[in-house]
Amino acid sequence: MSRKHASNSLRPLEIRTGYLENRPASVLYSCGHTRVLCVASMESGVPRWLEEAGKGWATAEYDMLPGATVPRYSRQRDGKISGRTQEIQRLIGRSLRGILDLKKLAGWTLRIDCDVLQADGGTRTTSINAAFLATCLAVDAAVKVGQLDASPIREELGAISVGLVDGNALLDLDYREDSSADVDLNVVQEGSGKLLEVQGTAEGASYSRQDLDRLLDLAEHGIREILEVGRRTLQSCR
Amino acid sequence: MSRKHASNSLRPLEIRTGYLENRPASVLYSCGHTRVLCVASMESGVPRWLEEAGKGWATAEYDMLPGATVPRYSRQRDGKISGRTQEIQRLIGRSLRGILDLKKLAGWTLRIDCDVLQADGGTRTTSINAAFLATCLAVDAAVKVGQLDASPIREELGAISVGLVDGNALLDLDYREDSSADVDLNVVQEGSGKLLEVQGTAEGASYSRQDLDRLLDLAEHGIREILEVGRRTLQSCR
Amino acid sequence: MSRKHASNSLRPLEIRTGYLENRPASVLYSCGHTRVLCVASMESGVPRWLEEAGKGWATAEYDMLPGATVPRYSRQRDGKISGRTQEIQRLIGRSLRGILDLKKLAGWTLRIDCDVLQADGGTRTTSINAAFLATCLAVDAAVKVGQLDASPIREELGAISVGLVDGNALLDLDYREDSSADVDLNVVQEGSGKLLEVQGTAEGASYSRQDLDRLLDLAEHGIREILEVGRRTLQSCR
Amino acid sequence: MSRKHASNSLRPLEIRTGYLENRPASVLYSCGHTRVLCVASMESGVPRWLEEAGKGWATAEYDMLPGATVPRYSRQRDGKISGRTQEIQRLIGRSLRGILDLKKLAGWTLRIDCDVLQADGGTRTTSINAAFLATCLAVDAAVKVGQLDASPIREELGAISVGLVDGNALLDLDYREDSSADVDLNVVQEGSGKLLEVQGTAEGASYSRQDLDRLLDLAEHGIREILEVGRRTLQSCR
Amino acid sequence: MSRKHASNSLRPLEIRTGYLENRPASVLYSCGHTRVLCVASMESGVPRWLEEAGKGWATAEYDMLPGATVPRYSRQRDGKISGRTQEIQRLIGRSLRGILDLKKLAGWTLRIDCDVLQADGGTRTTSINAAFLATCLAVDAAVKVGQLDASPIREELGAISVGLVDGNALLDLDYREDSSADVDLNVVQEGSGKLLEVQGTAEGASYSRQDLDRLLDLAEHGIREILEVGRRTLQSCR
Amino acid sequence: MSRKHASNSLRPLEIRTGYLENRPASVLYSCGHTRVLCVASMESGVPRWLEEAGKGWATAEYDMLPGATVPRYSRQRDGKISGRTQEIQRLIGRSLRGILDLKKLAGWTLRIDCDVLQADGGTRTTSINAAFLATCLAVDAAVKVGQLDASPIREELGAISVGLVDGNALLDLDYREDSSADVDLNVVQEGSGKLLEVQGTAEGASYSRQDLDRLLDLAEHGIREILEVGRRTLQSCR
Repeated sequence: MSRKHASNSLRPLEIRTGYLENRPASVLYSCGHTRVLCVASMESGVPRWLEEAGKGWATAEYDMLPGATVPRYSRQRDGKISGRTQEIQRLIGRSLRGILDLKKLAGWTLRIDCDVLQADGGTRTTSINAAFLATCLAVDAAVKVGQLDASPIREELGAISVGLVDGNALLDLDYREDSSADVDLNVVQEGSGKLLEVQGTAEGASYSRQDLDRLLDLAEHGIREILEVGRRTLQSCR
Repeated sequence: MSRKHASNSLRPLEIRTGYLENRPASVLYSCGHTRVLCVASMESGVPRWLEEAGKGWATAEYDMLPGATVPRYSRQRDGKISGRTQEIQRLIGRSLRGILDLKKLAGWTLRIDCDVLQADGGTRTTSINAAFLATCLAVDAAVKVGQLDASPIREELGAISVGLVDGNALLDLDYREDSSADVDLNVVQEGSGKLLEVQGTAEGASYSRQDLDRLLDLAEHGIREILEVGRRTLQSCR
Repeated sequence: MSRKHASNSLRPLEIRTGYLENRPASVLYSCGHTRVLCVASMESGVPRWLEEAGKGWATAEYDMLPGATVPRYSRQRDGKISGRTQEIQRLIGRSLRGILDLKKLAGWTLRIDCDVLQADGGTRTTSINAAFLATCLAVDAAVKVGQLDASPIREELGAISVGLVDGNALLDLDYREDSSADVDLNVVQEGSGKLLEVQGTAEGASYSRQDLDRLLDLAEHGIREILEVGRRTLQSCR
Repeated sequence: MSRKHASNSLRPLEIRTGYLENRPASVLYSCGHTRVLCVASMESGVPRWLEEAGKGWATAEYDMLPGATVPRYSRQRDGKISGRTQEIQRLIGRSLRGILDLKKLAGWTLRIDCDVLQADGGTRTTSINAAFLATCLAVDAAVKVGQLDASPIREELGAISVGLVDGNALLDLDYREDSSADVDLNVVQEGSGKLLEVQGTAEGASYSRQDLDRLLDLAEHGIREILEVGRRTLQSCR
Repeated sequence: MSRKHASNSLRPLEIRTGYLENRPASVLYSCGHTRVLCVASMESGVPRWLEEAGKGWATAEYDMLPGATVPRYSRQRDGKISGRTQEIQRLIGRSLRGILDLKKLAGWTLRIDCDVLQADGGTRTTSINAAFLATCLAVDAAVKVGQLDASPIREELGAISVGLVDGNALLDLDYREDSSADVDLNVVQEGSGKLLEVQGTAEGASYSRQDLDRLLDLAEHGIREILEVGRRTLQSCR
Repeated sequence: MSRKHASNSLRPLEIRTGYLENRPASVLYSCGHTRVLCVASMESGVPRWLEEAGKGWATAEYDMLPGATVPRYSRQRDGKISGRTQEIQRLIGRSLRGILDLKKLAGWTLRIDCDVLQADGGTRTTSINAAFLATCLAVDAAVKVGQLDASPIREELGAISVGLVDGNALLDLDYREDSSADVDLNVVQEGSGKLLEVQGTAEGASYSRQDLDRLLDLAEHGIREILEVGRRTLQSCR
């Protein structure tokens, strides 16, 4: 199996901030053919169990549109949320909370919606990257109108998937590559380079500590580039 | 209440066909700030009760993304589909079937997904207009690859909402106008000018037969323009 | 297809008010073989979003008993309410609110239950007609015991279905006629003759503006008779 | 607390067979103010686990209309069936199967629907009594048209509730009596006098074997009268 | 069919109180191969409809683990609770309330969880017997820490199933016996010998009053032994 | 915070195989106060999408009993399965499939049920360890009776949680330790020492690559001991 770009390079990124006129904190984030529409909403109030703690909250919902896949993805309309969907939206929310100072969000819930318009691998990491930018835009607006005194964002946030395919370590797997990977590793990192999440799963063959190290190196390289692109995007729209 | 354009003119239309690379029959249809992503899928097989009849079927699903409204629209994740959602998706499906020769679709189900990215009034009629174009594209492809012998499309299809606001008949209501309308009328028509659906509801005050006539005239005028724009769009992408 | 009565005459109406001993505002309303049991309940309190507005509310639920149809109608016991059921109960509630002065209902919710014991066409319009009478009885009682200062009923309310069958405009379709109609039109009117709802659907063939006018004339004729029968019924039981 | 009729007499029974024109096996059964509409349907086919056994099946569904009680009974529309409802419909089905020779029903499911139009105590036993008559009518019809070779009914079926109220054994409790009963006993018997179900529940005080005997005597007396009335009803309509 | 022990003797009982270290009011109750883990929790607060009455409440939940039966018992994960499950947990709760003085529980809800680890007949009566012991332990603790002023337990509580198998009255049926029983009778009694529940169901053949008397005698004999074993168990652990 | 045993030692393990008489492949696995009942069932047939592939399947369900936690854990009875529950049961199933040769399971589904009787940290890793032993027992039996030709088990399987608490790397966290951990890492390994799953989550502070390495070393040490204990357990019961 061949890929058009180098094994250690990302697919093309294209980011449109403010994609919805009525939603300044909306981001349409494309990574290759994967396209995620992410909207951040500041809602007043926090979950009941946080009311006493003087903290805010951040949480995410993730879904895919029916046209995002071939064949068509069936809407989950029976009141059940699939395990995969729940895992992903829990991961997005946890990652965001990892770089937020929730005390500075006191009284507010930051609600992130990630909807995949087109899926071609890496939807969970693309969602995290889009969520970080939408959060920055929502926080900018909240500080400007005085809802927040100061930004609760402690660190930049980036995520990428890497994998072992036919023995090769590949960065930023598309759907075809992901399907044939022996190991699939999702990494979420802070701007500081420290880790927030490492989720490595053997899909076809178990893996050694050396494999893990090699993949973590590759992921770090990719996340650094993602953070750089995000930084430039925010500068141009601020 | 004032509007920027004439009472008998449509809001700006912007249509992108083939919006998703993996989905030739995808249409991003904007009418003012209302933006609907519509994808048509040809699925082999028909509902059981049609198997004997030698007919195909067409059906639609409609939903709104959480970021489509302010405040945020809650996902319907409890297994219930709201009455409004059901009414709209039944209307879209029924309207499409009204212009299709289902015998020519024998063995196939045309499945339409309409997802509202941004909602500013007229989402059900915009969905019908987008669904018609996506259907044309899906049928083109199905004829080209030999899935269908001939196009099952009998007539063009267009829809628009009109209303009485402060006594004035207005074409193509946006959300603000719709909220203050005394009468809200949705009209679905064939290219021939004949009617497929008339749904007129008194929201604040009952209305006379004369009011109804005035509104139907206005709707016919708007639908003619919508059909013309659709025709040009299809020509340019075929 | 032939019908026993004239194309512009109603099926026999039979109305029993106070059908349930424990429920003065109960009506058993038969229109041909269609039989609907309707009960109106005055409940103290209003939906939360109306609490500030100084208004009351009126809402309806509609269902069919399993024995109402042949073959047996399956109970909806899976927590989903079909689109058809939702459309009908929303229509009943909206129609009632159209003739009520909700300010005079302040603090109360008028809850209407329409249960179809036997279905033979026109169950939604029969439900509206029964709901109007049950509402009159419930309001009479509420005024008598001082729950309401004055009647909130602004106008009489009537509804009928008409249709085009083999090119003929027919009043008050039964199930067999409804199944073979090319156009099906449900009309809800006030006593003043003004319209509250017009819902015209092409079932087999699209229809012209002239067809629509012809059907609206016929509906108006039928509703006038329904209102007259209702008036006499209420006089005899008041 | 006083009752108008003797402690060992039933409330007035009123039975209308063929209450729905389209449903010969429909019975409207009134026992005092308790009114149950029961419809029996013969459906071809049996549950999968019976297919090999050469047997038929009989099953029941029970529900109450919202207007049946004061205050209004909420429809169970969330996909859950209350424990009380499930207990009752299981009891009705089990009682019927107790008097049926299921081998003679081979290939058929007898489906019983009991819907309570008005509830004033004894709805489960009234449902059983109505279900027995509806079953007789459905079996008559099925034998006549040749769906069944012979009647599968082995015995007559009757049911009644009795209770201890202020130390007195009362037959056929109405709602007010039932609410203040210390012991509530539902009995289902065959025409032969043998027992099918005894369900005795202490509601406020435990009870002795002597109490149980006294209540069983009273129940037997009441059931004998119910069977006699049913017999006369069937004779007059056969 | 033969059984190893006498027809009027119980299967071996084995009771472990405080089975879970973190749950003093936990009981692992084995009756033959039937094994039930029962935990009693005192929760502050009562259902809303009891708040005014100055009473406490007691309620139970019952379930079976998938490994409890052969073949495997499917978890009820679709939001529906089977009729059988609901009947059993209602019976457990009602039986407990029958021996409790709810006034002495004012402000508290006693919540009983019965989970069947292995099922071999008599799970509902074993659950009641386990629930009584867990309740005693929970009340002991609540009195000791001052949550309750005095014990609300008015009487001892015991339950057993008996049945007619091939004409023989058998005590404490195991699964094989229960499956072939013609009559199945569950009895719940107070320590005083008075009855709380009698539920006798004809499974294959109806039964006479004499049969009922014989079975009630046998049940009383068994329950007396169960109460004696429980008494000794509590003494040894108090 | 202090712990009674060394930071690199496991809590006491206690394993009872064949805990349920009717279920030879049942294991009660205690790790400290965490107690999991695990049952493996061999079911004939595979999911539809595997039918063509000549492979078997292995899958797991996980749940907690209400008495497992303080305060009581609410049963999930509303048809929704929490994200946490889904994540855990997906992890158990995936881990098992990682060490199975599914071709040798052709035609069979290995169904694992893990029910937590008492929860004190590490329930997911204890479930995996119990599931491996139950699988060995189920495979032994299936080979003995000829359901399987050869064992599909390719490797041993072990899992453990490690974490950073106040800067210290701890093995096998209990609930109190887990709650105050800054980093929580779950590791699943083969007997060969190769990795199947690495799930490292920052709970309070992000972590460095050095932290990750230290924790992986500790996990490997613990898993080696778990595998040794499992090996001895199986020898003694085979």
